[in-house]
Amino acid sequence: MLALRAQAATRFKAISSCLTYLRAATHRNVSSKVLTVANMNPNVKRMEYAVRGPIVQKAVKIQDDLNSGKEMPFTEVVRANIGDCHATGQQPLTFIRQVLALCTYPELLDDPRFPEDTKAKAKRILSGCGGNSMGAYTESGGIRVIRQDIAEYISERDGYNSNWENVSLSTGASEAIKSILQILNSPGPNGESTGVMVPIPQYPLYSATMAEYNIQQIDYFLDEANQWSLSTEELQRSYDSAKDKCVPRAIVIINPGNPTGQVLSKQNIADIIKFAHKEKLFILADEVYQHNIWAEDREFHSFKKVLCELGSEYSDVQLASFMTVSKGYMGECGLRGGYVEVVNLDDDVMAMLNKLNSAKLCSNTHGQATMDCVVKPPQPGDPSYELFTKEKDAVLASLRSKAKLVTKTFNSIEGVRCNEVQGAMYCFPNIDIPQRAAEHAKSKGMAPDAFYCFELLEKTGLCVVPGSGFGQREGTHHFRCTLLPPEEQFRAVMKRFEVFHKNFLAEWS
Amino acid sequence: MLALRAQAATRFKAISSCLTYLRAATHRNVSSKVLTVANMNPNVKRMEYAVRGPIVQKAVKIQDDLNSGKEMPFTEVVRANIGDCHATGQQPLTFIRQVLALCTYPELLDDPRFPEDTKAKAKRILSGCGGNSMGAYTESGGIRVIRQDIAEYISERDGYNSNWENVSLSTGASEAIKSILQILNSPGPNGESTGVMVPIPQYPLYSATMAEYNIQQIDYFLDEANQWSLSTEELQRSYDSAKDKCVPRAIVIINPGNPTGQVLSKQNIADIIKFAHKEKLFILADEVYQHNIWAEDREFHSFKKVLCELGSEYSDVQLASFMTVSKGYMGECGLRGGYVEVVNLDDDVMAMLNKLNSAKLCSNTHGQATMDCVVKPPQPGDPSYELFTKEKDAVLASLRSKAKLVTKTFNSIEGVRCNEVQGAMYCFPNIDIPQRAAEHAKSKGMAPDAFYCFELLEKTGLCVVPGSGFGQREGTHHFRCTLLPPEEQFRAVMKRFEVFHKNFLAEWS
Repeated sequence: MLALRAQAATRFKAISSCLTYLRAATHRNVSSKVLTVANMNPNVKRMEYAVRGPIVQKAVKIQDDLNSGKEMPFTEVVRANIGDCHATGQQPLTFIRQVLALCTYPELLDDPRFPEDTKAKAKRILSGCGGNSMGAYTESGGIRVIRQDIAEYISERDGYNSNWENVSLSTGASEAIKSILQILNSPGPNGESTGVMVPIPQYPLYSATMAEYNIQQIDYFLDEANQWSLSTEELQRSYDSAKDKCVPRAIVIINPGNPTGQVLSKQNIADIIKFAHKEKLFILADEVYQHNIWAEDREFHSFKKVLCELGSEYSDVQLASFMTVSKGYMGECGLRGGYVEVVNLDDDVMAMLNKLNSAKLCSNTHGQATMDCVVKPPQPGDPSYELFTKEKDAVLASLRSKAKLVTKTFNSIEGVRCNEVQGAMYCFPNIDIPQRAAEHAKSKGMAPDAFYCFELLEKTGLCVVPGSGFGQREGTHHFRCTLLPPEEQFRAVMKRFEVFHKNFLAEWS
Repeated sequence: MLALRAQAATRFKAISSCLTYLRAATHRNVSSKVLTVANMNPNVKRMEYAVRGPIVQKAVKIQDDLNSGKEMPFTEVVRANIGDCHATGQQPLTFIRQVLALCTYPELLDDPRFPEDTKAKAKRILSGCGGNSMGAYTESGGIRVIRQDIAEYISERDGYNSNWENVSLSTGASEAIKSILQILNSPGPNGESTGVMVPIPQYPLYSATMAEYNIQQIDYFLDEANQWSLSTEELQRSYDSAKDKCVPRAIVIINPGNPTGQVLSKQNIADIIKFAHKEKLFILADEVYQHNIWAEDREFHSFKKVLCELGSEYSDVQLASFMTVSKGYMGECGLRGGYVEVVNLDDDVMAMLNKLNSAKLCSNTHGQATMDCVVKPPQPGDPSYELFTKEKDAVLASLRSKAKLVTKTFNSIEGVRCNEVQGAMYCFPNIDIPQRAAEHAKSKGMAPDAFYCFELLEKTGLCVVPGSGFGQREGTHHFRCTLLPPEEQFRAVMKRFEVFHKNFLAEWS
């Protein structure tokens, strides 16, 4: 390596940068390149993913300016654009990180500072790894003991048996969602495209993936006037409007809702399942916020449980439920752990899904191990139980408190209306944007709420995502704001928001 | 949670398994399901990935039988089917695991058993993470300081500058390879499909991905009689045979070769680049085995370096080079770390690639941190240097010794020919299969070499992958065997192989 470095240093001096040549040549003759935006995959070109869109780049720029001493009406950018818990100050749970450290470096198993239950879990996970190493590939579906633990968690949660062979670990929930959409994507008998029903507003992973796979997105609208509820009449309208243009094959439900924060009632879920049964739709149940329920009168019901309760008449309804380690109370986004449980898939379809996964080899072992900590947390009497519970409860209590705060604050401001945040990690307030501001935005090629959000960012430091990135009823404007910034910062920015909105209305009315 | 468990237990007793109902119903009425093998994505149906194919399932079954005491002519299955280093006994490098443990659980930063350089590296990595936590999402392309370290590694390796903004971290090399193939996939002016040239034999990730994306695979044959070398005449023949059937847009090169183990000379690489330039082909350079060079007269030359050396005349050649933490001396397959460096991509195409990545959020942080350890290992004088070097050299020395052993052993057996394993982790011997055995295999719907490999597994415990899974010239038969099993085990199984092959020839001649 050293010899290589010395050699390299010499070359550096002797030869001017090849890339400079290459760049210069590029500008002379762009068209000679094989891959250009003109001839690249058109589906990828059509994709949009608002959560990491241009507003985030602007936020980075502003924070850089602040860091280099530029004077602004605020001292820091408040990142409320993405559900990135640890980045906004949430602390990792000790139990999870201790287990992961032990799995990573088993020499620590003799270290007295690690509680016995973390050691027992690490040993159990390592026993499921090839060569007892986190560095071995796992089976395509994940480490078997973890899949078994997940199945047990689901069984206990729902009261209905879950078979571990129907559970696959994935790189976050996103990868599993993409796999299911991919396997469903099949042209109809006359070459019609596959249609998938998605809620509006929706989490843009869905719209992005459908663009990527050239799947027809069939919008159904959540009812903002009724707490973002989901009516089967609207599902029927949406389905009927699309069924002659494509082959509708699936419906996506996000519960608790992202970006809308609603939590579906058991009756509502049963109605959706009956609708899916009638119209022969595969159900994608995005249940990644199952630990994030804030409204006292709501609880989480899984689609699997309600399907089972409906009995054998609905036994042909196929379902995939998604979970992640990125949300809940753990917020381990960077570890990229997730799972999918499929229900009622034929064995030969399961084999195809496994094959699709196997070409990607496996998801990462740390994400898998984290999921094990989530589905099998410490129990009363375990040495880690008390600290785990304390840390978990503190995270959830803070989120709950902010969920109440945002609803209250937004609704106290003229020209802003916000449904109760019943669950998940976001609010999606409806904002009045004066006609003149909307026209100004359009003249600059921007959606009105994108213009609003850029102004908001520049004047208050609050970074949120325009509602147009999630979809909304024509003529309405929203933004998505996470509940994640620390409470003090959050309260302060809410005050700046209030002033901003008032001024914005005054300026553009 | 406890209350939930009690409730669940009661329900378990009261309600017989919902899934039993559902399954029974399935068998009565398969056609009522939304998703069946008949109507699923036809591309996914066409995919094949031999490395995790049926022979591996058979191997698992045999090992289970051995474990439960069944008598067999061998005591253990020798897994030589997949490059899964730790699963076959290779130990993780202490330095890597210490850094990862510190990043995971920073409370250990005060622990004297961790050397100072591991702490410095962990702190540097954490400084690049949101909230200083491995649990935060990273930028889509990865943690910036790690991308910078990678660019520095490439610059030093090649003697030409690498820009960190052209480097993206990925979930193993596989994910990056798939992204590049995906973005290249675009119908021609008359709807022609995209064609990509791949070596035969090839690593089946490529054939699987091309089936998945409906890309036309254009085979070019490596020359077995000349050490699996790559002739530009063959490239031209292959290109010419395909250019009227699809739009050839890219060429895949695997160097060092998988499954073939050849290492390309600088002249050969230059010729390939000139060919790509002439025919306007994007180059995918799979260079994941760049640390695995065994032949004394060979060294690794990156495509990027050779392209730079060719000068500005070739400045429109676009290139992507892939690297992983799964191979080399580290073998951290389960951690799923990889990177791609792109060269000569236009900024707007880069933006599209970033957008495609951003919808997947980011690759996992442990895979990223591992890559940092690989591109910036301990240097002389660092506290970890000595142990790191000792462990690294031991792994490489063992692989080198086995590379020599397999060539020698296979070539000493009548009816087996094996090219020198110049690099990578595999040999791909050519085996005689008597006509009668080939016909018998075909009568059972199997490729002759698949039949051979199943027999080999059952009689010797050696699990290898049939050559038909990688592609080979019509009428020839091979298998891929990794160099990974421990030396003693490897020597023993080589002896069993010799007896097996002799008997096989005798039985079927």
